[in-house]
Amino acid sequence: MIAVGERINGMFLDVKKAIKKQDAGSIADLARRQLAAGATYLDINVGTAAADQEATMRWLVETVQAAVDAPITLDSQKLPVLQAGLDAHDGKRPVMLNSCSADPDALDTYIPLAKKHDASLITLTKDKTGVPQDVDTRILHAATIVQKAVEHDYAIDKLFIDPIILPIRVDQKQPDFLLQVMQQVRLISDPPPHLMMGLSNLSQGGAERHLINRTFLVMAIAAGLDSAIVDVFDTELMNAAITAEMLMNHHIYSDSFLKAARA
Amino acid sequence: MIAVGERINGMFLDVKKAIKKQDAGSIADLARRQLAAGATYLDINVGTAAADQEATMRWLVETVQAAVDAPITLDSQKLPVLQAGLDAHDGKRPVMLNSCSADPDALDTYIPLAKKHDASLITLTKDKTGVPQDVDTRILHAATIVQKAVEHDYAIDKLFIDPIILPIRVDQKQPDFLLQVMQQVRLISDPPPHLMMGLSNLSQGGAERHLINRTFLVMAIAAGLDSAIVDVFDTELMNAAITAEMLMNHHIYSDSFLKAARA
Repeated sequence: MIAVGERINGMFLDVKKAIKKQDAGSIADLARRQLAAGATYLDINVGTAAADQEATMRWLVETVQAAVDAPITLDSQKLPVLQAGLDAHDGKRPVMLNSCSADPDALDTYIPLAKKHDASLITLTKDKTGVPQDVDTRILHAATIVQKAVEHDYAIDKLFIDPIILPIRVDQKQPDFLLQVMQQVRLISDPPPHLMMGLSNLSQGGAERHLINRTFLVMAIAAGLDSAIVDVFDTELMNAAITAEMLMNHHIYSDSFLKAARA
Repeated sequence: MIAVGERINGMFLDVKKAIKKQDAGSIADLARRQLAAGATYLDINVGTAAADQEATMRWLVETVQAAVDAPITLDSQKLPVLQAGLDAHDGKRPVMLNSCSADPDALDTYIPLAKKHDASLITLTKDKTGVPQDVDTRILHAATIVQKAVEHDYAIDKLFIDPIILPIRVDQKQPDFLLQVMQQVRLISDPPPHLMMGLSNLSQGGAERHLINRTFLVMAIAAGLDSAIVDVFDTELMNAAITAEMLMNHHIYSDSFLKAARA
C-alpha cells in the first residue's frame, strides 16, 4: 500500500504550534518518524494555522525536503497553495497533488498542472453539486476523471481516484457503497487508476476510531484499494494493511511477513 | 455473524484430558465460557481422544446440554458419530451437522438426515477427487449442493456452504479465490445459502495466527460470509467481526456498538 502519512497537517495542534513558531525541528521530527513507521508519502497540509497559506506551504515543503528524501503530497483545496508547494518542490522526489474534484473545468486545470510537474494527482468523485451518496454517481465521476486523463495524455498510473468515505455516523450504508465503487473503478481502464482513501474521515467524531479505521481498511484493500492517507503511527492499522496485502497475494507470505514488509 | 465456538474438540489437549477422565465440569466450563465470549453455536468434536467415538460424542452432547441451553454443532467426518450426536440431542435447541461433502451420494444421505432432525447442515465444496484449488470448481460444487437441497425440499436457510480455506502456507492465492467464491455463492439462490468457514485452518502452522485470522475474517464478512467456526476467546477477532458487520450495515452504529453487539 502507498501509505500517505497524515500528520504534517496544521489541523493537528502540535503542527499548528510548530508553524506559528516556525519550529522546523518539530516538523522534521514528524517527517522522520512517519517514514520510520512506514509512510511512503508525507502529506503536507497547512490547515488553518497561518494567515499566509502559500508562504506556510512553501516553508513546510522546504522544511520537509531539508529533513528527508521522501515523496511528498501537497494537500490543499486552494490551487495557489498547491502551486506554492510545487514552486518549493525540489524536483528530486515524487510529488502528489491532493486534490481535485471531478468537475470538468477543474480537471482541465489540475491535470495539465500535474502533468507539467510530473506530479501524481488525487481526484475526488464529487462535483459542484457535492459528494454523491450513491454508487452510480461516484462511478460516473470516476469515468469522467479517467476520460479527462486520457484526453490530456496524462499517465493513468499517476492518477489516484478517491471515492470519498463519509463518517459512519453520517450514513452507515456508505462503507459498503465505497467497496462497490472501488471494485468497479478497478475495471474502468487497463491499467486501472490507483484508488486512494482519506481513511480517518470514516470514524470522525465517533468511538473506537482505530478499530473502525483498520477494519474498513482491510475490506477496502480486498476491494482493490492500493493507497490511503492514514495515521502511520497506528501500528495495528499498519499491521492490518500489511496482512491484508499479504492475504491478497501482493507480497509473499513467510513467518516474518510483517518484518519483511517493513524492511 | 453466527459464531461457532471451536473449543470443545478432542484435538485440544485440555478437552482430550477431560474426555479421558470423563470430567464433565471442564466441558461444562468451556461451554459456558464460550457462550459468555459470544459463541452462537458450540461445536462438539471428539477428535482422536477416544477409542469409542460414538459413545464419546453422546457423552459430550449430554454434558453440554446439561450445562447450557445453547445450540450445538455435531462435528465429525463419520456418519455414525454424527448419528450418535443426533440420538443424544435433546430436541430443545438448534442443532447443526458438520459436515458433508458435495458428492451427490453424500448429499443424498446427509440432507435427508438433517431434514429428518430439523438440523442445519454444513456442506464442503469438495468431492471424492479432493479439495479444489480454483474458484470455478468450488462454485460448481456449491451449485450441486444447492440443487440437491432443492431436490430434497430442504430449507435453504438451514444450508451452510463452506468453501474450504486452505492454509496460507500452502497456497497464497487461495484467500482471494475464497472471497470470489463467497461473492458468487451469495448469488446462487434467493435467499442465498449461509456461508461458513473453518477460519483457524487459514493460519495453520504459521506465525501471526490471530492477526491473519481476524484480517481474513473481515474480508470474508465483506464478501458475504455470515458464519464461521472460530476461537471465540480471541477478543480481537470477535471485535473485528462485530466491527465488520457494523460497517456492512448488518447492525446499527452507535458509539457503544461493540457493547451492544455483545449484549
